[in-house]
Amino acid sequence: MTDTQTVQYSNILFETNSSIAYVTMNRAKKRNALSLGHMQELIHCFESIAKNKEIAVVILRGSGPAFCAGHDLGEMVEQAPAFYRNLFEVCTKLMETIQAIPQPVIAQVHGIATAAGCQLVATCDLAVATEDARFATPGVKIGLFCSTPMVALSRAVGRKKAMEMLLTGEALSAEEAVMAGLINRVVPADKLEEETKALALKIAEASPFTVGIGKQAFYKQLDMPQSLAYSYTKEVMSLNATAADATEGICAFLEKRPPNWKGC
Amino acid sequence: MTDTQTVQYSNILFETNSSIAYVTMNRAKKRNALSLGHMQELIHCFESIAKNKEIAVVILRGSGPAFCAGHDLGEMVEQAPAFYRNLFEVCTKLMETIQAIPQPVIAQVHGIATAAGCQLVATCDLAVATEDARFATPGVKIGLFCSTPMVALSRAVGRKKAMEMLLTGEALSAEEAVMAGLINRVVPADKLEEETKALALKIAEASPFTVGIGKQAFYKQLDMPQSLAYSYTKEVMSLNATAADATEGICAFLEKRPPNWKGC
Amino acid sequence: MTDTQTVQYSNILFETNSSIAYVTMNRAKKRNALSLGHMQELIHCFESIAKNKEIAVVILRGSGPAFCAGHDLGEMVEQAPAFYRNLFEVCTKLMETIQAIPQPVIAQVHGIATAAGCQLVATCDLAVATEDARFATPGVKIGLFCSTPMVALSRAVGRKKAMEMLLTGEALSAEEAVMAGLINRVVPADKLEEETKALALKIAEASPFTVGIGKQAFYKQLDMPQSLAYSYTKEVMSLNATAADATEGICAFLEKRPPNWKGC
Repeated sequence: MTDTQTVQYSNILFETNSSIAYVTMNRAKKRNALSLGHMQELIHCFESIAKNKEIAVVILRGSGPAFCAGHDLGEMVEQAPAFYRNLFEVCTKLMETIQAIPQPVIAQVHGIATAAGCQLVATCDLAVATEDARFATPGVKIGLFCSTPMVALSRAVGRKKAMEMLLTGEALSAEEAVMAGLINRVVPADKLEEETKALALKIAEASPFTVGIGKQAFYKQLDMPQSLAYSYTKEVMSLNATAADATEGICAFLEKRPPNWKGC
Repeated sequence: MTDTQTVQYSNILFETNSSIAYVTMNRAKKRNALSLGHMQELIHCFESIAKNKEIAVVILRGSGPAFCAGHDLGEMVEQAPAFYRNLFEVCTKLMETIQAIPQPVIAQVHGIATAAGCQLVATCDLAVATEDARFATPGVKIGLFCSTPMVALSRAVGRKKAMEMLLTGEALSAEEAVMAGLINRVVPADKLEEETKALALKIAEASPFTVGIGKQAFYKQLDMPQSLAYSYTKEVMSLNATAADATEGICAFLEKRPPNWKGC
Repeated sequence: MTDTQTVQYSNILFETNSSIAYVTMNRAKKRNALSLGHMQELIHCFESIAKNKEIAVVILRGSGPAFCAGHDLGEMVEQAPAFYRNLFEVCTKLMETIQAIPQPVIAQVHGIATAAGCQLVATCDLAVATEDARFATPGVKIGLFCSTPMVALSRAVGRKKAMEMLLTGEALSAEEAVMAGLINRVVPADKLEEETKALALKIAEASPFTVGIGKQAFYKQLDMPQSLAYSYTKEVMSLNATAADATEGICAFLEKRPPNWKGC
């Protein structure tokens, strides 16, 4: 039994179903607001998942009426500067951890995804949402610009669209979010779980070793000038090519049979 | 009475309507071509706006049949290298000033926006256009590639779309410009002023102090690798959180009342 | 007679039609797979084109049922690390050469464009495709993540779309590829050659000297922070403005006559 399965969390639920892990934000009454304790549990959970070779894909979702309404405003009033710096430090660590772990993370979104909740969607590798889901960075309306969410948002959608969301605080519909590049798919509410799982299972067919190499290289190369990105990915892909799963995968393809992954 | 209201400009008009400033390019016969003098007045005007705390949002528009046709070709024939270097230096300063001032700048576009005129649209924080507006970087047709407009264009739209505009010089329709991410909204010609103003007023509801922090951080963080962008915005957002307008905004939200901004 | 016209290639065809060059990948039975030898010929051909002032635009296409199916898996099984490093080195050189030559390169795509074939499409300056063309980075299915194709792909389309293609290996339709920004146009199969040629001829109307300056600056400035991109393109555009073709182009425009390019 792994670490992730023995820890008792207060704010989240952790379950696995074969090779898929479900991380459920579970503060339904607070629309899954990201209190400090909530974020720390999420970080712990994702870090544990990173070490668990049984898990191929992660689905991040919310219980109750919403995906996530962002930070917990109740704990943010008139705090000292040190409190805020720590809060945004922890929030950033959560976002960076989601992108750093080898397993792809899919946001399964219903209801609202606002502020740091919208940032979670922008940060996850993939996102599936219901037709009535709404995405916004409304901090500007309460005097606190969504400056850290903007890092993820402005790297997922175009500048004009990001600026409009940040300056007006108005929400994108799920359809608009697909058009803008913020999410991958829109599905009817009663198909959300099924469609998200189907996407996860599709990815879980691949060698987790190969997927992990690729996902981790994706974010690193994005921040490099193109010539360095090629220098880096040439090495990544050469290493990948020498691995057992590439040999197995190429042979299986040439022999027209299913591959038998070894996980290395 | 502020500096902006006392200066007499030759090429532009400057007006305010409550917290909205209107900057109107006013060389209608030249389709608002950006002569050196025109650009210098625009820079002066935007710099004055930056210091004017009464102004929350700026609308940039053109008089006559077009938004802006780019540089003034009449003054560009067979000049010395020093002339061109100064011209593009001043043009770049104009673009950088628009993004550097704390107030959001909305391009209100009708007719054509070509070359440096298209660059203005790409540079402004937001853009609203009429259905018959057209956007092009046609320098290639006159032997002078739109190399400085391409800096703004290629950061607003995808590579393939930018390359097509730059290599063919062909125009995008307003509808295509929305799809490409170059502008935010298309409206009927007779609704242009009203809709642009409505967008400005929406933004003007927020604390100008908060908006200024967010707008200025937006462009700075875009040019950083993601990890540095987070390091930077964590500090920006922590500072913002300690400010009076964040305390007021969060309290107003929790108390379900409208906020009363203090502007700091 | 130029170098390009005298060399005999085994894997590709090289033809010219007035100022347009056609480079045809010609391994139809292998769906134009990019064997080491094939890529080396393509690099040689593009490098020769770079020196040929008669050529204004290049069209890259494939013979047989597909544009290009990526690397030649038959030669990739159980090779030494040095083989893979050289293979991806040569592949990267091919991609960088396409972007480095002064002439625009248009991908004319039919059938499938997968893995390094999809990378070719993402790398070319422009792309036109048939309605039934398909685009995929399916390496993940054979244990070899498309890590070098991802450099080009993730710079052409949004993050979420790139991640979905890379993690699932599933194909985009031509229509989806236009929406994503991977290609410029979709046309009926029987119009592919005609429409691609029309686009090439449109570009060939411009001064090749001007086009070359602009194309080469495009990729360089993309990798710079905006302020450096402006510093760089101000110089590029000033130099361009002092050249004979800019003087001629501006004068022709002001005199309402067609320009007579001198190519310098």
